Amino acid sequence: MAKELEGFNFEQRHGKARVRVGRVWRSKDGCRHFMVEWNVNISLLSNCVAAYVRDDNSDIVATDTMKNTVYVKAKECSEQLSAEEFAILLGKHFTSFYPQVFTAIVKIVEKPWERISVNGQPHEHGFKLGSEKHTTEAIVQKSGVLQLTSGVEGLSLLKTTQSGFEGFIRDKYTALPETRERMLATEVTASWRFGDISSVKLKMPNIHFLPVNISSKDHGSIVKFNDDVYLPTDEPHGSIEASLSRFWSKM
Amino acid sequence: MAKELEGFNFEQRHGKARVRVGRVWRSKDGCRHFMVEWNVNISLLSNCVAAYVRDDNSDIVATDTMKNTVYVKAKECSEQLSAEEFAILLGKHFTSFYPQVFTAIVKIVEKPWERISVNGQPHEHGFKLGSEKHTTEAIVQKSGVLQLTSGVEGLSLLKTTQSGFEGFIRDKYTALPETRERMLATEVTASWRFGDISSVKLKMPNIHFLPVNISSKDHGSIVKFNDDVYLPTDEPHGSIEASLSRFWSKM
Amino acid sequence: MAKELEGFNFEQRHGKARVRVGRVWRSKDGCRHFMVEWNVNISLLSNCVAAYVRDDNSDIVATDTMKNTVYVKAKECSEQLSAEEFAILLGKHFTSFYPQVFTAIVKIVEKPWERISVNGQPHEHGFKLGSEKHTTEAIVQKSGVLQLTSGVEGLSLLKTTQSGFEGFIRDKYTALPETRERMLATEVTASWRFGDISSVKLKMPNIHFLPVNISSKDHGSIVKFNDDVYLPTDEPHGSIEASLSRFWSKM
Amino acid sequence: MAKELEGFNFEQRHGKARVRVGRVWRSKDGCRHFMVEWNVNISLLSNCVAAYVRDDNSDIVATDTMKNTVYVKAKECSEQLSAEEFAILLGKHFTSFYPQVFTAIVKIVEKPWERISVNGQPHEHGFKLGSEKHTTEAIVQKSGVLQLTSGVEGLSLLKTTQSGFEGFIRDKYTALPETRERMLATEVTASWRFGDISSVKLKMPNIHFLPVNISSKDHGSIVKFNDDVYLPTDEPHGSIEASLSRFWSKM
Repeated sequence: MAKELEGFNFEQRHGKARVRVGRVWRSKDGCRHFMVEWNVNISLLSNCVAAYVRDDNSDIVATDTMKNTVYVKAKECSEQLSAEEFAILLGKHFTSFYPQVFTAIVKIVEKPWERISVNGQPHEHGFKLGSEKHTTEAIVQKSGVLQLTSGVEGLSLLKTTQSGFEGFIRDKYTALPETRERMLATEVTASWRFGDISSVKLKMPNIHFLPVNISSKDHGSIVKFNDDVYLPTDEPHGSIEASLSRFWSKM
Repeated sequence: MAKELEGFNFEQRHGKARVRVGRVWRSKDGCRHFMVEWNVNISLLSNCVAAYVRDDNSDIVATDTMKNTVYVKAKECSEQLSAEEFAILLGKHFTSFYPQVFTAIVKIVEKPWERISVNGQPHEHGFKLGSEKHTTEAIVQKSGVLQLTSGVEGLSLLKTTQSGFEGFIRDKYTALPETRERMLATEVTASWRFGDISSVKLKMPNIHFLPVNISSKDHGSIVKFNDDVYLPTDEPHGSIEASLSRFWSKM
Repeated sequence: MAKELEGFNFEQRHGKARVRVGRVWRSKDGCRHFMVEWNVNISLLSNCVAAYVRDDNSDIVATDTMKNTVYVKAKECSEQLSAEEFAILLGKHFTSFYPQVFTAIVKIVEKPWERISVNGQPHEHGFKLGSEKHTTEAIVQKSGVLQLTSGVEGLSLLKTTQSGFEGFIRDKYTALPETRERMLATEVTASWRFGDISSVKLKMPNIHFLPVNISSKDHGSIVKFNDDVYLPTDEPHGSIEASLSRFWSKM
Repeated sequence: MAKELEGFNFEQRHGKARVRVGRVWRSKDGCRHFMVEWNVNISLLSNCVAAYVRDDNSDIVATDTMKNTVYVKAKECSEQLSAEEFAILLGKHFTSFYPQVFTAIVKIVEKPWERISVNGQPHEHGFKLGSEKHTTEAIVQKSGVLQLTSGVEGLSLLKTTQSGFEGFIRDKYTALPETRERMLATEVTASWRFGDISSVKLKMPNIHFLPVNISSKDHGSIVKFNDDVYLPTDEPHGSIEASLSRFWSKM
């Protein structure tokens, strides 16, 4: 701990965010192409307090170097690999190559490029962007201890019936009627952790489709709506987050 | 023309934008549900200059009324219909119901909710959001003349090979090498017009996947990249727009 | 007109969008810095149909070349200049340097970097981002004819009183009560054209601040609200667009 | 702990996000108006596992009720108050009014509406949106223990000189040249905690303004650039986060 920071707790991390990389692999005959597009976010925890208090960068890994490393390592991966494998590979590199880096946090969001089908046949090199995204995070310690999370984000789902909401607390702030029948919509963000500690974490906002009901002073209820016309709205939304883990977990 | 505006040309339109409506239809037995989610944008051209120069709103259709109309008309549609049919229906309503409205422009963007399959069977009432969006625009005149455009937006496509760019102008501002082999990516916005005048309009930006090439003063070229590692980038991008029409068209 | 396109009208334009450039100028003693950040969008109308129908790019200005030109021309501007002047300069370059380019459309959005004040004194080289953006568009013909538009976007304004909305059409779709007192909010997009033809164009959406009114079946009106608590909402919003020109104008 | 969850750790929270509220206060003579616009995010930690495992909502505070509470409490605040005070007030309400709620997390982002000046005089009721936003978070325990954080987000700053980056690690992945002169830009997110534990947390990404340097095979370096023309870019960016606290802190 630097003298200047005595009596304080100082924590810092630095890295490179939004490093985008596309990687193409080809079958042996060169005809069939495989491709991924990753958005990589690297954060390094290291002993480099000198840079903050003494203007000494000798322990600093330049974030430009981190970016280059993503491209060089992607190049070195001559066989197709998963986002999880690439995140681990990067995390191990940073914690082993640099003595002062004790933890590397590597997050990857994969764009959902899907192979196109033409006349029922998968195309050799044509791709179309799908919807929800695959995510991963590898937290790698210098000791080799690894915490790996996989997940999905942007998965929008709805069902038009067989959802209800009844029996909740009614008090002077409550205006919502009970219902046995409503539309249910959400955008799922989920992640799950592998290894000795196994956990699942879910974030499922309640995206409201409000049943429409218009009334006017002049004409009373303008028309009778029967749960078939809705106002979809992003704002506000209910927020529901939960995690389930074998021993412990952190929200 | 109001006296206050003599010697000037005055044009105005008013409407309601981002009116979101969800509509559910049920099969006769009530089991199978069909649903759409539309984002409706209404713009009315009408004779209402008095509102601008004399503070007289007697010719003004309140934009709140336009919004209500979307919900009432959606309710009245007891059979499933397309976004095109709904846009026309709204446009005809506004131009016929209100004497002073001479043109209605109704745009709809449809969210790509797709029926879910479970165990290979289409689910009765479960939906998942897809990627590209269906769009439509109906321009309806009081005379009944109608111009209808359909389209798609947000359709991201790429191919990893068999694109080249050669033989273009080389001058002192040119740095781009010629290439017979590059990745090609775009996000298509397309629209097509029906009726006597038939036209197609395409907007296909060239979203660049730059081949990575890193060199350093210290080590020369860091690694040899062979068109298999790319930097995908949204900014800047090439822009290409074209329209083709039988007689005339307007960009 | 290419033979392949006979009987059709074909229009196309191509260019480079989102070319970002920062330019710093220094006072003679080097101490005081002036800077701008521009987002430049170039679109060229040119005779290059061969590229579309015969795979012949000999008339094509590469969009990468357009991008380079922005940087080279920015460099050549050794004196500080306005976004309008830079747009004209670029437009004149493209229409005079390339024989086949007959029209250049150059749009610039300027980021609102504002000089910081420290202890009441303007700082020599420190800047802070403000809110609304300055915009410009130059349409330059090969003949030298020029149409220049200046504008502003993202200017959010509100007043908490002295706005009303009364006397509008009431029909069976109308639920909105008349009001002599409401909050008024908007995000102004404005542009004005110079030269022989002088016009002003305004886009002022009505961003609603809805007076809150909560009622429940159990407790009736939960609390009496008196136009002092509002729900601000972006969606839907009223849309109002108008243009005023000396002779003619186009929405 | 519910029997169904034995052997597992289960954590959950639910709430209402993006509750937008505008509040206007008037001076005694009614002439001068004061206003705020807040975006409120409420998250409650409570004992309600029955809702998850036994379909029993009797311990559930409906998120719609939370939303109403924001408006009712805003109404009850007859005197102008800060976002911090309002967040605490809401947090105390939820933890004291509902027996099963043991922690309330209330975040508020305030829109930067600034009073307009006309002819050098502050306007009575006209406001304009500024740039950076004020944020706050109150974590309130049933015991009354309170953790309050204040902050700012979206504060974009740059200086055009007097920044350098030298002496960092050079290895085979390093391409970045050392520099004693560069542009420095960032978008500050900062927060500070009051009370017994006093801490400061900073997130200051390094938003790159890359010095432009164009070279072509045909013409060599196209033009000599001297750190006066830059390519501003949002992606990738350096990320720097640090926290300083008297005793302990959590990133």
